Amino acid sequence: MVGIIMGSLSDRKVMQEAADVLTTLGVVWEMDIVSAHRTPEKMVEYAKTARDRGIRVIVAGAGGAAHLPGMVASLTTLPVIGVPVKSSNSIDGWDSVLSILQMPAGVPVATMALDGARNAGILAAQIVGSTDERVAQKLAQFKDELKEKVAEMSRQLIAP
Amino acid sequence: MVGIIMGSLSDRKVMQEAADVLTTLGVVWEMDIVSAHRTPEKMVEYAKTARDRGIRVIVAGAGGAAHLPGMVASLTTLPVIGVPVKSSNSIDGWDSVLSILQMPAGVPVATMALDGARNAGILAAQIVGSTDERVAQKLAQFKDELKEKVAEMSRQLIAP
Amino acid sequence: MVGIIMGSLSDRKVMQEAADVLTTLGVVWEMDIVSAHRTPEKMVEYAKTARDRGIRVIVAGAGGAAHLPGMVASLTTLPVIGVPVKSSNSIDGWDSVLSILQMPAGVPVATMALDGARNAGILAAQIVGSTDERVAQKLAQFKDELKEKVAEMSRQLIAP
Amino acid sequence: MVGIIMGSLSDRKVMQEAADVLTTLGVVWEMDIVSAHRTPEKMVEYAKTARDRGIRVIVAGAGGAAHLPGMVASLTTLPVIGVPVKSSNSIDGWDSVLSILQMPAGVPVATMALDGARNAGILAAQIVGSTDERVAQKLAQFKDELKEKVAEMSRQLIAP
Amino acid sequence: MVGIIMGSLSDRKVMQEAADVLTTLGVVWEMDIVSAHRTPEKMVEYAKTARDRGIRVIVAGAGGAAHLPGMVASLTTLPVIGVPVKSSNSIDGWDSVLSILQMPAGVPVATMALDGARNAGILAAQIVGSTDERVAQKLAQFKDELKEKVAEMSRQLIAP
Amino acid sequence: MVGIIMGSLSDRKVMQEAADVLTTLGVVWEMDIVSAHRTPEKMVEYAKTARDRGIRVIVAGAGGAAHLPGMVASLTTLPVIGVPVKSSNSIDGWDSVLSILQMPAGVPVATMALDGARNAGILAAQIVGSTDERVAQKLAQFKDELKEKVAEMSRQLIAP
Amino acid sequence: MVGIIMGSLSDRKVMQEAADVLTTLGVVWEMDIVSAHRTPEKMVEYAKTARDRGIRVIVAGAGGAAHLPGMVASLTTLPVIGVPVKSSNSIDGWDSVLSILQMPAGVPVATMALDGARNAGILAAQIVGSTDERVAQKLAQFKDELKEKVAEMSRQLIAP
Amino acid sequence: MVGIIMGSLSDRKVMQEAADVLTTLGVVWEMDIVSAHRTPEKMVEYAKTARDRGIRVIVAGAGGAAHLPGMVASLTTLPVIGVPVKSSNSIDGWDSVLSILQMPAGVPVATMALDGARNAGILAAQIVGSTDERVAQKLAQFKDELKEKVAEMSRQLIAP
Repeated sequence: MVGIIMGSLSDRKVMQEAADVLTTLGVVWEMDIVSAHRTPEKMVEYAKTARDRGIRVIVAGAGGAAHLPGMVASLTTLPVIGVPVKSSNSIDGWDSVLSILQMPAGVPVATMALDGARNAGILAAQIVGSTDERVAQKLAQFKDELKEKVAEMSRQLIAP
Repeated sequence: MVGIIMGSLSDRKVMQEAADVLTTLGVVWEMDIVSAHRTPEKMVEYAKTARDRGIRVIVAGAGGAAHLPGMVASLTTLPVIGVPVKSSNSIDGWDSVLSILQMPAGVPVATMALDGARNAGILAAQIVGSTDERVAQKLAQFKDELKEKVAEMSRQLIAP
Repeated sequence: MVGIIMGSLSDRKVMQEAADVLTTLGVVWEMDIVSAHRTPEKMVEYAKTARDRGIRVIVAGAGGAAHLPGMVASLTTLPVIGVPVKSSNSIDGWDSVLSILQMPAGVPVATMALDGARNAGILAAQIVGSTDERVAQKLAQFKDELKEKVAEMSRQLIAP
Repeated sequence: MVGIIMGSLSDRKVMQEAADVLTTLGVVWEMDIVSAHRTPEKMVEYAKTARDRGIRVIVAGAGGAAHLPGMVASLTTLPVIGVPVKSSNSIDGWDSVLSILQMPAGVPVATMALDGARNAGILAAQIVGSTDERVAQKLAQFKDELKEKVAEMSRQLIAP
Repeated sequence: MVGIIMGSLSDRKVMQEAADVLTTLGVVWEMDIVSAHRTPEKMVEYAKTARDRGIRVIVAGAGGAAHLPGMVASLTTLPVIGVPVKSSNSIDGWDSVLSILQMPAGVPVATMALDGARNAGILAAQIVGSTDERVAQKLAQFKDELKEKVAEMSRQLIAP
Repeated sequence: MVGIIMGSLSDRKVMQEAADVLTTLGVVWEMDIVSAHRTPEKMVEYAKTARDRGIRVIVAGAGGAAHLPGMVASLTTLPVIGVPVKSSNSIDGWDSVLSILQMPAGVPVATMALDGARNAGILAAQIVGSTDERVAQKLAQFKDELKEKVAEMSRQLIAP
Repeated sequence: MVGIIMGSLSDRKVMQEAADVLTTLGVVWEMDIVSAHRTPEKMVEYAKTARDRGIRVIVAGAGGAAHLPGMVASLTTLPVIGVPVKSSNSIDGWDSVLSILQMPAGVPVATMALDGARNAGILAAQIVGSTDERVAQKLAQFKDELKEKVAEMSRQLIAP
Repeated sequence: MVGIIMGSLSDRKVMQEAADVLTTLGVVWEMDIVSAHRTPEKMVEYAKTARDRGIRVIVAGAGGAAHLPGMVASLTTLPVIGVPVKSSNSIDGWDSVLSILQMPAGVPVATMALDGARNAGILAAQIVGSTDERVAQKLAQFKDELKEKVAEMSRQLIAP
């Protein structure tokens, strides 16, 4: 199971894309609001119990001085995927990106592109799929569909 | 008392300047290594008990994806001063600055210039001095000395 | 009392948030227009007399080449909180942030996030609350409300 | 097995840290030079056959206009971890970071901090450890050692 | 003939300007959708066969982590012109620019301004025109028209 | 007469270049240490009396949160030339540049390149030379010498 | 007389502010379209004859790779004021600012804030006013009006 | 023939790499010092006569506010390749890159990576090679050697 968390309901529009693609790829997920700065105790609890609750990968989205992904990573040995959100208080997303990406040696966060929640879902599926053949096949099929979309656009270009 | 914390001994060279100027200004301080990412539980403990241990202001230094000042601020109602450190893993200091400065509404961190630990010490003294007349006088005297140094440089310029 | 100043009425929309949260936290404030570049003499007068007029913390907002917070800090020993405003003449806020944050050693400004006036008010209250038990309790209650808001969002997520 | 690749021997000093930490965490790895721009055919071959050769995670390091991690990710369904290298032709690392991080929807790369090869190794182990109990235990032990190092620094600070 | 490619139909609005100015300058072109990340095999095929299909210059547009121009340049000895597109997933265009511009020694991409597809078309014509007198004359005439437009604006300014 | 000021003796190495080129161009100058943040009263005095003391142009150098040029400009109607200094506390010069350049409407500062004190001296001479024929002739001669230096380098290139 | 030039009619909306404030300050001006890239010969002619045509200061506005102010400065000994315009082809104004500001030693351009044409007009008047008493008095009066506007805003704040 | 120009002898160390690779690829070149800001008339002359003197491609290197490549492009219909040089007066190369890259529509400059003179030489050869079979074969051989170097590094990695 993949755990998806974010600091505020306002991040949900972005983060829902992770959940949607996980559904497409046949991976179970749960979602919750966990704020590093407003609910630090809940965050500690969430991260420390995640593995035992059956979570294999955590996807965490945050914006501005985005501490949620890195703090969760400090509290678990599960892989943590961070989604920098271009929230309303962010300086064009640079703060979100840098405060998730630039983690010190010892505590990695797998950082996605700005607002890249869809890719967070795909990466979580790839992690599951590295040992789960069924998900690996769904991913291969997903890649074929990407190709087919380009072929379709190519046809549209010539005969619009 | 002012509590000075940092994530690693390698930050000490920078952070000692906060302690030194506090000594000059007659304010008591203590110092410890507290890492947001390597010792999250110690950090929670430190921040939650700070007020009861007699600390009035916390000065926290960190570099890269610098989460220590903001996380401590989320766990206490004391004023927290953040010093962005240009650590070896930082991209010219931009990550350190943005991940301390850009805190969401509700949880402020008083951010200093890059490597500005000396100013962190002075600000901590100003906070103490806002109600402590003795420290306020030390600060006034400190300001006069800044002026005198410029006057001295001005004399040197003319007759070097 | 907290003194809130800004260079232009156009900054008021942002800066009013500092005043509002101070009211919530039970701290008295006053507000004025003081421009570093258009009324330098008024600024000198304001800063030099602030302590004697009973002000304990100054909150100053400015944008672009934002000199108001730093210049006021050079003229008083009170703690000064700077709010970088993303004004219409600013390059995405970078000038506002850097010209407030990067103060030289000797003259600190407690810098907030871009447009972070609400946090300026909270920090001013934290400074007052470091010795005023009544305000400290209001701050603790404020923190509890932040937590409750996240809990409420968490419930909404599950049963929207 | 984890596959570690880089575009040039000059990146090896950085990338060896990924291999070293994998050895510490009990995960097997192999290493090769694969250049997106100088050996595009070898890169295609490497990426397409990786899963069948028993590789579960690919770690790819590159600098400047860093295309290796993203191109490998386009050619496999395995999780790909990208390490932006601050190579001699890079503009302070910004090009390396952005050309790895900002992947389009559909093709994620788990991006690490600048020169963050050590964290790439740890994340690869976390991915393996999400289903391999033995590696998970090594990771938990590794986390404990991080804590112990801070405790040791804390003792040094008090009695240097 | 000039080959114009882009990763998605959404880039067409920008890239059509290259085609239009080529028509004006009397240079034949073809256009297709080729995605580095979604159709890597098609990209390899396109680049490797371009010279034999009579293409003399390739114009490639891409945004975000923009790998198309650089990867095509790695697979052909034809001159490749890269157009950084300010796509919806780009951080103000910086990722697009840097991931096209900062190519390693050995594999150049002639990089244009952000969204500078019109200039890509003109440069392609200049390359053709460096040995084709007819196109060179069209370019000289095009330059005269630029001058005439300024003269016309100058007249409008005085007598609007 | 041109007045040259800077906040600290450490800026002198850069600022002396303004004085030297003024001497070359036959324009009288004086130099002093005036700090916006450490001697605000001296700065006010300096700026307000400059015109009456016979100064026609003020050259002000400063680094980091550089307030000296802008504050002096707010206190005089003389033209003020600002030199952003890449001081030791500056973030690669960006703070110095932006806090001098981005002045609000009403109070201009003629901003030079980073560490561009030599150009500040030349611009001051150009301002004087706009009505002083003798200085204008020196400037014309100076421009000829720039050309001659290039011609000399051109000769060296061919026969080194 | 002040000569105001710009590369395109689309810059006029910004540049007209320079003309308007010059009119307010009693300084004569003329305006023309001169493009560095589309009419290089006209630019050379304009710059070389400016002094003899009675121009004392040149104000030049340009955006993107903005070469007009610097090239004009290379062709005259008059003071040149550059206005970086945030044109439609500019990356948030950074290219406009840097390609005007960062002139090499020997050829200064007095750079204004982004879109700071109003300040360009004021600086041009200050240059004229450094020897013209009538304009100096207008400038002093202009400064008084800036103060009065702040006083008016201050009154509005209290009794809105 | 390829014409290589630069503003100062200090750029030669970088620009010589263009000449060297052209020699390797069998393309004739000439080199000169031409400064946009110090010898604008020489620059006009150089650019206007280049085609008639048998030059097919111009390679121009410059740093800081780098106007040489763009101004030359405005004066000729030949393809112009710009090399942003990280000169001593540049802000980490950003000014050099942006003032060459961000040319307005109508006047393209084929921009290379920072200090990318070697790639400028290769691109010039590719332009020549688009119609010259002998140079095209040299380029194909050059690409094979790039591959062989990677193969050699790959062997070194395994048996150092």
